[in-house]
This record gives sequence, C-alpha cells and structure tokens, in this order.
Amino acid sequence: MGRKSDAGDRILAAGTKLFGQRAYASIGVAEIAAEAGVPKGSFYYFFPSKQALALAVVDAHWEQQRAEWLRILTAAEPLTERLRGLFASTVEVQRQAVAGTGAVVGCLFGNLALEVSAQDDPVRARLQQIFEEQIDIVEEAIRPEHAAGRSGFGTAREAAKAIVAQIEGMVLFAKLFNDPGQLDPLLQNSLRLLGLDDARTAA
Amino acid sequence: MGRKSDAGDRILAAGTKLFGQRAYASIGVAEIAAEAGVPKGSFYYFFPSKQALALAVVDAHWEQQRAEWLRILTAAEPLTERLRGLFASTVEVQRQAVAGTGAVVGCLFGNLALEVSAQDDPVRARLQQIFEEQIDIVEEAIRPEHAAGRSGFGTAREAAKAIVAQIEGMVLFAKLFNDPGQLDPLLQNSLRLLGLDDARTAA
Repeated sequence: MGRKSDAGDRILAAGTKLFGQRAYASIGVAEIAAEAGVPKGSFYYFFPSKQALALAVVDAHWEQQRAEWLRILTAAEPLTERLRGLFASTVEVQRQAVAGTGAVVGCLFGNLALEVSAQDDPVRARLQQIFEEQIDIVEEAIRPEHAAGRSGFGTAREAAKAIVAQIEGMVLFAKLFNDPGQLDPLLQNSLRLLGLDDARTAA
Repeated sequence: MGRKSDAGDRILAAGTKLFGQRAYASIGVAEIAAEAGVPKGSFYYFFPSKQALALAVVDAHWEQQRAEWLRILTAAEPLTERLRGLFASTVEVQRQAVAGTGAVVGCLFGNLALEVSAQDDPVRARLQQIFEEQIDIVEEAIRPEHAAGRSGFGTAREAAKAIVAQIEGMVLFAKLFNDPGQLDPLLQNSLRLLGLDDARTAA
C-alpha cells in the first residue's frame, strides 16, 4: 500500500477515534490531521470536508458492525442465544474501549445522532438509514418467533425497534457512568420486550 | 423584578434554548449573551463560566421535569394510566418544540450525557444524579405492581431503569427522524418490560 493510501487510512482512523471520544462539533480538521500525523493540506487530498470524513467514518463503522450483527443474528442457534451473542459483543466493544482509552465510547451513531441538528445534514440522513438497517436485521432475526405467536402483540418491526432503542438507551447509561456493566440487563430486557422472558415461558 | 435578575433569567433561557438545539461544545458565551440580548460582560456577572450556566440550565430543567413526573406518577390512578400520562407528556414536549422551532429537541439530559466525556466534569456528575432520580421516581411508581408479583422476574429498579433507557432510546429516534410519533410505542414497550402487557394479562 502506497504512502498516500496509508495517510487516507490514518485520517479515517483518527476521525473514528476522535468522533468516538468527543463532540463532533468540537473537533476540527487541524486536530484530525495532527492525530493522523499528516499535514492539514493532506486531509483535503483525501476528504473535501470534515463532513465527508464523518460520512466515511460512519460508513466504515457500519460496514464492520453490520457484518458482526449479521454473523451473530443469522447463526444457526436459538434466538435467545443469538441475542445473548449480540449483547456480549456490544459489551465487549465498550470493555475494549475502557481498556484502551479508559472510557466507554458509547455508540458512534447515537453520539452523532444527538448532535446533527440540521435537517438537511447528509450525516443525519445516513444515520437514519443505518438505524433502519439495524432494525431490519433484528426484525429479520425475531420474525420466526414472532410469527409463531410467542412474542405477543405488536409487529416484529415494533419489537425490533424497541430492542434497538433499548440498546441505545443502555449504551447512553454505560457512557454516562463509564461502566460497561450497565449493559448487562440488555438480554433480559429484550426477552421481555419479545415476550420470551422466563416468567412468560414458565406460565 | 429588577433589570439585573431579568438579564440572568434571559441568559438562563438562552442557554436552555441553545443547549437544546445544538452541541454544547459548539456554543460559546458570546453566542449565549447575544441570544439573551445582554453584553458578553454581563454573562460573567451572573455565571462564572459556560459550565456554570450548563449546571444551572440542567438544574432548572430537572426541577420542572421532576415536578411533572412526580405529579403524574404519584396520581391516584392505575399504573397503566399514570405511565400513559407520563409518555403523553413526553410526546407533548417534543410536539411543542416542533411547533415552536420546527425540530424535535430530544432530551436535554441525554444530549449532554453523550457529549460530556471528561470523567471529572461536574455536568456529568449532575446528569448521573438526575438519571438516578428519574429511575427512583419510576421505581417508586411501579414498586406496588412489582411487589404484587405481576411484573415477573427482575427487581423493580431493573424494570425502572429499562423504562428510562427505553425513553432515552426512543427520544433519540424522535430527534434523529424529527418525528414525535416515534415515541408512540413507549407505553406498549414499558408495559411489556413490566410484564403488564395485554398478551400477558390475557393469558
């Protein structure tokens, strides 16, 4: 790989790191270039703007997370075990962040979603798509259980959205309290949202 | 009320408005003073720093929201009706924001929680207290149902935390999609988290 693409990769990595740690609005191109170890002018060789980098960071992060979610949620295992795997992966990402930087980074998409306020911001549009795709993946995974009538009222999509919202809310607590353990109830809560918790199945 | 306290109130109102609309990091004292219609020097007569204003904004917002939550959740009504009232109030706040500014503002506490990354930030400590108090209030409201064994496994506190997390996650969607209607499933999801949904009670 040539030096130029190395620099592009380093800028992408610097953006991923900084956008995960601090408010998007507080981070400038100069800081990103310094973190990447490239001259500020080099930044614009690869990305026309901070926004363009943000879109690239979001896309790269989602490509990776999407593959992980699909790998776990389409495995040939009972739904409860697949959900357990998904949340274990969620906790592990935050534990690694704590080990590496001392801080829970939270969810890159959630962090940015609460920041981008302009209605016509392309980052906002991309985040909307990503959350819809997250809900799609969960919906697909829970649909057979739902169709079998074991998860009660509501559509599979409503249940999937409730689960993704629960993840975002719990990750917010994990970040605020800097404690990945805040995520431990995710499986229990999701099974309850699906009507698949012990209390019901025991009934 | 004298001119000076008017100015202090206007600075507080300007901070509440701006912190609700945009990233905390992107807002400076000069902009807050301009929004309040006071000279920048006047800002420092009332608040030693932007952080001090943020604490005052957060405290004032919580004082108001806490009173509203307590009024609704301690009313002499069945739990389902009290939760329905709480979420109706949550939706109404966002609908009013849309009517006033064109945008869902989301949750001031959630927005700030995802921004304050420094572990020793006093705003972060205050937000931790507020979320604990929110969970306390919900826990108190659901405890009798929980004690009566109608809400299945887990503690009342775990269930209360799941409900507050669900609110934060759904409010994030409402903000991202600029649509208060995203909050409509809150009652259904909360009843499921409590094991009080129709499917269960009908069983």
